[in-house]
Amino acid sequence: MTGSQTSHEPYAVVDLINAKRRGQRLTDGEVDWVIEAYTRDAVAEEQMSALAMAIAFQGLTPDELRRWTDAMIATGERLDFSGLSRPTADKHSTGGVGDKITLPLAPLVAACGVAVPQLSGRGLGHTGGTLDKLEAIPGWRAELSNAEMLAQLESVGAVICAAGTGLAPADQKLYALRDVTGTVEVIPLIASSIMSKKIAEGTGALVLDVKVGSGAFMKTLAEAQELAETMVRLGQGAGLSTVALLTDMSTPLGLSAGNALEVRESVEVLAGGGPPDVVELTLALAREMLGAAGRDDADPADKLADGSAMDIWQAMIRAQHGDPHADLPTAKETEVVTADTDGVLTSLDALAVGVAAWRLGAGRARKEDPVQAGAGVELHAKPGDHVRAGQPLLTLHTNTPERFARAKQALVRAYEIGPNAPERTGVVLDRVT
Amino acid sequence: MTGSQTSHEPYAVVDLINAKRRGQRLTDGEVDWVIEAYTRDAVAEEQMSALAMAIAFQGLTPDELRRWTDAMIATGERLDFSGLSRPTADKHSTGGVGDKITLPLAPLVAACGVAVPQLSGRGLGHTGGTLDKLEAIPGWRAELSNAEMLAQLESVGAVICAAGTGLAPADQKLYALRDVTGTVEVIPLIASSIMSKKIAEGTGALVLDVKVGSGAFMKTLAEAQELAETMVRLGQGAGLSTVALLTDMSTPLGLSAGNALEVRESVEVLAGGGPPDVVELTLALAREMLGAAGRDDADPADKLADGSAMDIWQAMIRAQHGDPHADLPTAKETEVVTADTDGVLTSLDALAVGVAAWRLGAGRARKEDPVQAGAGVELHAKPGDHVRAGQPLLTLHTNTPERFARAKQALVRAYEIGPNAPERTGVVLDRVT
Repeated sequence: MTGSQTSHEPYAVVDLINAKRRGQRLTDGEVDWVIEAYTRDAVAEEQMSALAMAIAFQGLTPDELRRWTDAMIATGERLDFSGLSRPTADKHSTGGVGDKITLPLAPLVAACGVAVPQLSGRGLGHTGGTLDKLEAIPGWRAELSNAEMLAQLESVGAVICAAGTGLAPADQKLYALRDVTGTVEVIPLIASSIMSKKIAEGTGALVLDVKVGSGAFMKTLAEAQELAETMVRLGQGAGLSTVALLTDMSTPLGLSAGNALEVRESVEVLAGGGPPDVVELTLALAREMLGAAGRDDADPADKLADGSAMDIWQAMIRAQHGDPHADLPTAKETEVVTADTDGVLTSLDALAVGVAAWRLGAGRARKEDPVQAGAGVELHAKPGDHVRAGQPLLTLHTNTPERFARAKQALVRAYEIGPNAPERTGVVLDRVT
Repeated sequence: MTGSQTSHEPYAVVDLINAKRRGQRLTDGEVDWVIEAYTRDAVAEEQMSALAMAIAFQGLTPDELRRWTDAMIATGERLDFSGLSRPTADKHSTGGVGDKITLPLAPLVAACGVAVPQLSGRGLGHTGGTLDKLEAIPGWRAELSNAEMLAQLESVGAVICAAGTGLAPADQKLYALRDVTGTVEVIPLIASSIMSKKIAEGTGALVLDVKVGSGAFMKTLAEAQELAETMVRLGQGAGLSTVALLTDMSTPLGLSAGNALEVRESVEVLAGGGPPDVVELTLALAREMLGAAGRDDADPADKLADGSAMDIWQAMIRAQHGDPHADLPTAKETEVVTADTDGVLTSLDALAVGVAAWRLGAGRARKEDPVQAGAGVELHAKPGDHVRAGQPLLTLHTNTPERFARAKQALVRAYEIGPNAPERTGVVLDRVT
């Protein structure tokens, strides 16, 4: 309808929603306006959710998506690391179970001469949050001012801290809306959400770890490839050296899912040990970050072996008031899940373990919920390992033993034991540039 | 996600939205709950708008739609006319330009021995509202209690009044939401909106006038057929004798669009005159209503000719405090649009005339806006008529002459004059039972 104009807005949002519902492309002016107007509450939540759902079905063209992302960036501040003495590189993971890679990765890449400004979030649902993990370390604080972050990047070379509210506030509002309106799993909206923050953050190079499998948002390789290609295109369009690895999330990464448990495992990796899959992925991502930042001369494996990555880890934790030598919290109660038969562990489902860890108290259902630092799931076997009936497969940790029952419910069909070993595959499934 | 249950609701609306987004059918329990919870504000507006948009793409199965409609009915009261001495029949039009048919139709059908409880609404946008038209009659009031309505149905046989807020309150809330979220033109949502109110109203028979063409929601015959079939199926499923006519809305009905202008034309029809298309459609709908109510013995044409429909009209207006003999309001200012060439009027666009009447003050852009009783557009020629250059085609009426310019803008390409007469078609295009 084209009736009497009753507001001073240049567009009527209903016209934009109807256009997208019918499969039309929004103009640059329409995209700029709808994001800006939504951020200042001139487009209502129910209107943006209808538009988001229309986008779920009709998509956004590459140009439209780039404009949408730019419009989200324009609602907030942009950081600038160009004054640093070193190049910068950042990594973003789409989220998985047991994904503690940021912890060893950031100091490792810094040890190779590339600064890592890692703005992170807290966990929601079955995937853990990097800040929740680091907050298991006594004294460590996540909140830094932009000036503190810059100073730490220059002095230590790596910083993992909370993303401030100044970056892409449109995305923060839209993400909260998508979470309650069934529009989380929409590739252009995921891509613009991630990339708006990473571009605004001002990193010089970006490596994306796009997870595939039961524990990830993207359940199939095809979906993950589409998301990776969409994000790489957005990053490169914004002049950011961007590459994506597609990595396996059918089973948890490493041998732990839970905050303090994962810090402990990360420190093992920095000490030159740790589970092979965590080491493999940490090194693969480090090499991509160094390559994207133009420093492929350095070998990160050396920096794990010679202790220099560990030195930066300790400096990084201390710079944020944490004690890298303090004892980590442990849960008060544990329960063991044992194998019911002899054979080879053929699968151990990432989503089931993630949900179990969440229910034990490692994660939160709502933003305002607290998490238990010591809670989580410890793995004693990984797919491909031989097991015997009665052997411990998992240890569940929590301070609140009434949670064991629901955690074990999540694990009922979490694993399979068969006669033959599954085909071995590496963690990295594909690479998108 | 299936996390810690934090509310006492039996379902999480996000799961329902995601299911519908993926094309799954909602269960009966889910449908019942989401409508009921939305009505009591336990499902947020942004969640319902996302669900409505998902339905726009994925549809509702016939069973799902019936359940959805029943759930909307269950949120409110149901009227009961079974105590009346006569059968009842109602008509619903999907809305068009110059559609004053309810005014002569209700007393005409009553004159044939079938009671007509016509719960109506006010206009929004380019289509007029029946109550706005009748409110042009000095003293007439739209609001009746249920008891007053029943008493008037028994004494007069016809009542046209405002639908109370007690019928299907879920639909009232959802309709207001759809209006601002680009989900008006969604067939299952239109069908359930109309049918929930008509079924709750308790009429024994229902005739649907589904408009097709530029001035209607349904622009094509195929869409109109789908809507008609969907509504007829819903009505019959609810035990309501239901039939639909598909009627032409490419050009306005009759020779006027505007409140008092249309009352005047309706009275001409009741007096045995009036434009042929209005008479044709009034009689066609009357015959369908009588047939659906089991009274196809009566001939409505007789009741126009012998003045008995006019008698009931006058009694109906008087019963609602109106003066059927009072002078109707006229607009203070008029302007004439003339033909620019000789020839045959080949088209006169319904939407353009509707928008012009709206802009002259006959309609409203927002619910709270007032309307001008005298404003509107008078037609001096209809498609098929020969015209000469300089001859008046339209007269525009308004109290606020500054509106003429924007009204004439809407009419710039509203008509075509050519050498040959267009093919004559009747008003009724199809019939769905």
